[in-house]
Amino acid sequence: MKTIRTTRAIRRETKAARASGHPVVLVPTMGCLHGGHLSLIRRARQLAGANGTVVVSLFVNKTQFEPSEDFASYPRSLRRDTALCREAGADLLFAPSDAAIYADGHSTFVVESRLAKRMEGASRPTHFRGVTTVVAKLFNLVQPGAAVFGAKDWQQAAVIRQMTVDLDFPIRIVVAPTVRERDGLAMSSRNAYLSPAEREQATVLHEVIGTARLAVKSATAPLPAAALRRRLMRLVDKQRLAKLDYIEFFDPKTLEPAKRVARGTHLALAVFFGSTRLIDNGRL
Amino acid sequence: MKTIRTTRAIRRETKAARASGHPVVLVPTMGCLHGGHLSLIRRARQLAGANGTVVVSLFVNKTQFEPSEDFASYPRSLRRDTALCREAGADLLFAPSDAAIYADGHSTFVVESRLAKRMEGASRPTHFRGVTTVVAKLFNLVQPGAAVFGAKDWQQAAVIRQMTVDLDFPIRIVVAPTVRERDGLAMSSRNAYLSPAEREQATVLHEVIGTARLAVKSATAPLPAAALRRRLMRLVDKQRLAKLDYIEFFDPKTLEPAKRVARGTHLALAVFFGSTRLIDNGRL
Repeated sequence: MKTIRTTRAIRRETKAARASGHPVVLVPTMGCLHGGHLSLIRRARQLAGANGTVVVSLFVNKTQFEPSEDFASYPRSLRRDTALCREAGADLLFAPSDAAIYADGHSTFVVESRLAKRMEGASRPTHFRGVTTVVAKLFNLVQPGAAVFGAKDWQQAAVIRQMTVDLDFPIRIVVAPTVRERDGLAMSSRNAYLSPAEREQATVLHEVIGTARLAVKSATAPLPAAALRRRLMRLVDKQRLAKLDYIEFFDPKTLEPAKRVARGTHLALAVFFGSTRLIDNGRL
Repeated sequence: MKTIRTTRAIRRETKAARASGHPVVLVPTMGCLHGGHLSLIRRARQLAGANGTVVVSLFVNKTQFEPSEDFASYPRSLRRDTALCREAGADLLFAPSDAAIYADGHSTFVVESRLAKRMEGASRPTHFRGVTTVVAKLFNLVQPGAAVFGAKDWQQAAVIRQMTVDLDFPIRIVVAPTVRERDGLAMSSRNAYLSPAEREQATVLHEVIGTARLAVKSATAPLPAAALRRRLMRLVDKQRLAKLDYIEFFDPKTLEPAKRVARGTHLALAVFFGSTRLIDNGRL
């Protein structure tokens, strides 16, 4: 595995990889890798095949943090990430500096304006603009045939898929399942921020999805979203350290809000523990 | 020369062209071709070489027209354009339908937010967003090594160059000189809208540039921009049918406004004749 720090070198390496005729598959990450990321890299390895090239990018992307958020303190661990990437089967690790990605005077943004508006977009108004911009840049630097994203960031995957179609990137977007801790908490780099007491209560996100799923399963007709939401909110409220940001029901493809909840409706939620914000989602 | 109507076919054709190892050069146009466009196609032919591929796109791009503007009436002439492209040396003519470019639910835009703000951007607030979006799409559909734009749309070329750098498109942006009628009027598809009397007075745009150039040449020190602008505005005012939109002096690369005008400062202006809006620019 090669570690690459400059845009010039990643262009050169991926050009050579494409010229071989074998697949090039990209896994964009912000580093601080956990089991979720590793499952994406292994999925990329399957897609690329033994002779293809798996590129993992590792870049804490300033433009997708709100001004009030944790950009400066976001965990960084290049040495550990390098070892994990190698183990998981990556061929190229692209870890550019901030200046390599955002030159002075950078002034172009890619904006998805429909799917990006609600949920995460409502709570974090410039977040998806930063995501789509950096992903468009990575697509142009690496020019992969496919890119793998995690289902934990469900709305992000939908926004990126929309951008890919709308801007005609010749790239297949693959979404791999959420990986969970044994108690059901979705793996996330931000779990490291949790105090032991918060960590214990953080399973409530997963419990909300499970409870909603059970409610849908045992219902004989679609459930009014408002009533189900109120019931799930009480679950969150019972956790003393948890503060709900949102619970939403929606169509998993279009992200259109659902007024009635039935099998196949998707649920997403965001919950604060202190200043740590966790998200999760699932099909009901 | 082949005419292509679908995104699938242009991807296939340009992929084959790239696989040949010879250059692929793109000339984006809105059709209704005139001598200016033809000079861009000839420049593309030179850049591509005899074995390379020149792709001319021909698409009246709705998103770059303001709601009040002439999208519906913009002149279209596919048969004539096809013959002209062939003569000028194009290999592929890409003439997609509106629906092939903007699918239902299209919601992603590429936005350059610094260079695009002033001049044309001030007069036409959503214009450049439409330009950068469609050009990004064409870049991804054609994946050329170079793309040729006209110097008549100086700010557009600067905005596109900035977008290309910011989003890491591996594409060289080439700007070819403005082509003029014998009396100095810059060639433009919109010149066709002018009445004979307007056409006669439309040379004032070129005269403004010439007068400014002479003023700079004969000055012994940089000229205050405000005073020079007032003098040039009087030239426009003398033309009964002309209504000035703007005259601006700026750095040709950064587009930063110049308070003092000297050799090398750039001038751009926009003038209405009835509802027809003409632009021109030049180095002083």
